Amino acid sequence: MTQRLFTPGPLTTDARVRAAMDRDWGSRDADFIALTAELRSRLLGVVPGAAARHVAVPIQGAGSYALEAAVATLIGAEHRLLVLVNGAYGRRMVEIARRMGRDVVALEWSEHEAVDPARVATALAGDATISHVALVQCETTTGLLNPVDAVAQVVAEAGRVLIVDAMSGFGALPLDRGATRIGAVLASSNKCLEGPPGIAFALVERDLLVEAKGRSPSLAFDLHDQARGFEADGQWRFTPPVQVVAGLVEALRLHEAEGGASARLARYRRRYEILRAGMERLGYPLYLDPALQAPIIATFRPRAGQEKFDFARFHDHLARRGLVIYPGKLTAEPSFRVGCIGALEDGDFDELIEAIGAYAD
Amino acid sequence: MTQRLFTPGPLTTDARVRAAMDRDWGSRDADFIALTAELRSRLLGVVPGAAARHVAVPIQGAGSYALEAAVATLIGAEHRLLVLVNGAYGRRMVEIARRMGRDVVALEWSEHEAVDPARVATALAGDATISHVALVQCETTTGLLNPVDAVAQVVAEAGRVLIVDAMSGFGALPLDRGATRIGAVLASSNKCLEGPPGIAFALVERDLLVEAKGRSPSLAFDLHDQARGFEADGQWRFTPPVQVVAGLVEALRLHEAEGGASARLARYRRRYEILRAGMERLGYPLYLDPALQAPIIATFRPRAGQEKFDFARFHDHLARRGLVIYPGKLTAEPSFRVGCIGALEDGDFDELIEAIGAYAD
Repeated sequence: MTQRLFTPGPLTTDARVRAAMDRDWGSRDADFIALTAELRSRLLGVVPGAAARHVAVPIQGAGSYALEAAVATLIGAEHRLLVLVNGAYGRRMVEIARRMGRDVVALEWSEHEAVDPARVATALAGDATISHVALVQCETTTGLLNPVDAVAQVVAEAGRVLIVDAMSGFGALPLDRGATRIGAVLASSNKCLEGPPGIAFALVERDLLVEAKGRSPSLAFDLHDQARGFEADGQWRFTPPVQVVAGLVEALRLHEAEGGASARLARYRRRYEILRAGMERLGYPLYLDPALQAPIIATFRPRAGQEKFDFARFHDHLARRGLVIYPGKLTAEPSFRVGCIGALEDGDFDELIEAIGAYAD
Repeated sequence: MTQRLFTPGPLTTDARVRAAMDRDWGSRDADFIALTAELRSRLLGVVPGAAARHVAVPIQGAGSYALEAAVATLIGAEHRLLVLVNGAYGRRMVEIARRMGRDVVALEWSEHEAVDPARVATALAGDATISHVALVQCETTTGLLNPVDAVAQVVAEAGRVLIVDAMSGFGALPLDRGATRIGAVLASSNKCLEGPPGIAFALVERDLLVEAKGRSPSLAFDLHDQARGFEADGQWRFTPPVQVVAGLVEALRLHEAEGGASARLARYRRRYEILRAGMERLGYPLYLDPALQAPIIATFRPRAGQEKFDFARFHDHLARRGLVIYPGKLTAEPSFRVGCIGALEDGDFDELIEAIGAYAD
């Protein structure tokens, strides 16, 4: 039985993506250099306007590596980073900066509240030493969509640099109006781009990269040196995951063929509506105010009367039907998450609703 | 035309390895947790004796990440690291430690000389503040095999901790006699294990990991926390490259089925002998003293009379026949490298020799 993954990523990839992974490449060969150039160009192309000022810097590894690389490369000992926190991924950015010995402060909201740009403006007005601000576009913790454009405007008006963790939504949620005001956009191969996991990337303003020369305490996570490597000879500084690169390039070709980010968002929204309506009918409440919910991954609470909700049993009931969901990531209450992304069909969501309906407490 | 990669890795993988990559996995699901457990157990199993004292800690990304993770996790501000350098990978370890602000000193040899254990003993006797010693087992720069066992003995007798970069040879070159004296062994998925690139790993003595808690300035490269993650719930802390994990596990199964490291070394030695004899007949001299040459990757000089050796033209002559080799990595003179590893046949090496023989200067 084929598994269908209703997960935040790694997710169900298209068979064409996996077929593209079925070959070996010499990583210093001309054809792989061309593939790497296509990768970098297509990543920039996902965000309208980014190609004019930003440089695409893929790095080998997990998505969180892009967060750590951005902190290592962009935040110096003379800087102060303000992280806007309303979930696990904001907290992760704080931990990364703290570990690295960088000066970091956090502005916090609860996990069901969006970041409030007015509070950010006040914080920036009150602390001139804050040089950079980091925001998570869509918190995978809950699926909450933060107001990137409004925060970008506040940060730009205050003359600070904005770093956006766009991991969850890159390739679907729009960044275009904010693109020219974002210093660095961070994401990975295996969310809305629907590629295999194994590559993270940053789209960084060229000026920020240039002034970052020699700053990173990490050799691996030095985005300046990584970019310089690509620009010098088209090659990765260290061994790239060649099959993952090939799979991601194929995923980016499919992304373009589908119609880009807006078409993909429309597909996810259609699935989210099937999910939301079905779960409402079955009595599973959305955790978030629907106005804050991005159609990427949705967090649900147990039904009324399911006081002793047993996630493992619920998960296994669905998994026996080839339907895989994730537990919630809330710190305080029982919940579960259903992803709307990946190479699935509308019918898979109907089937999921049917299977959830058949769950006997 | 299928390419055959005579490279130091990424290399030619077995079709069964690539077939294992042709599915998606929920990275928090029971079957993937089982796959991860098999990966960690099989990695330890490659080195006889390692399971008793070492912990296998895979990390997402390129091989060099294991070097950086070992420095971040094992070398504190109170330590001093001595790196034994006779090639690019020793120099890389020095650069990693320097970037991180760690106290590091180097003992250097030329690129065609093996590390001399007596000089190491003298250095350790003369500097009691050296706490750790790092050695590259087989320098991919040239293919030179360093005397791991003798160095391990010297380091153990001096009561210091040895870190071995076994990237090039892990899974073929023996480490068994030294295993109990090596604090950390570092390697990656895509060399002698013949897996896809995208995973690095460290086999670390459990005692060293325990005392490393909270030391790493990097969240991603904290081997203590990564190991604790696996031990807590069997999961990776950050998104793993699921297809690469599946491919590597299949590669490890094939490694065992072939007869383990000694059988694999015998296969490589057989190919190396075809290569060495053929190249001698054609007049291409080995760069190294044959006594120092590991049968993993061999560096050759141009023939007498080939004063204006044009690597790109030579490479392309072979590439047109589907045969891919790498340039040399020597700092001082023209050279090229031919790998003996990967899922190739003896006949591929005969064909390579024939094609090199047909090259017209």
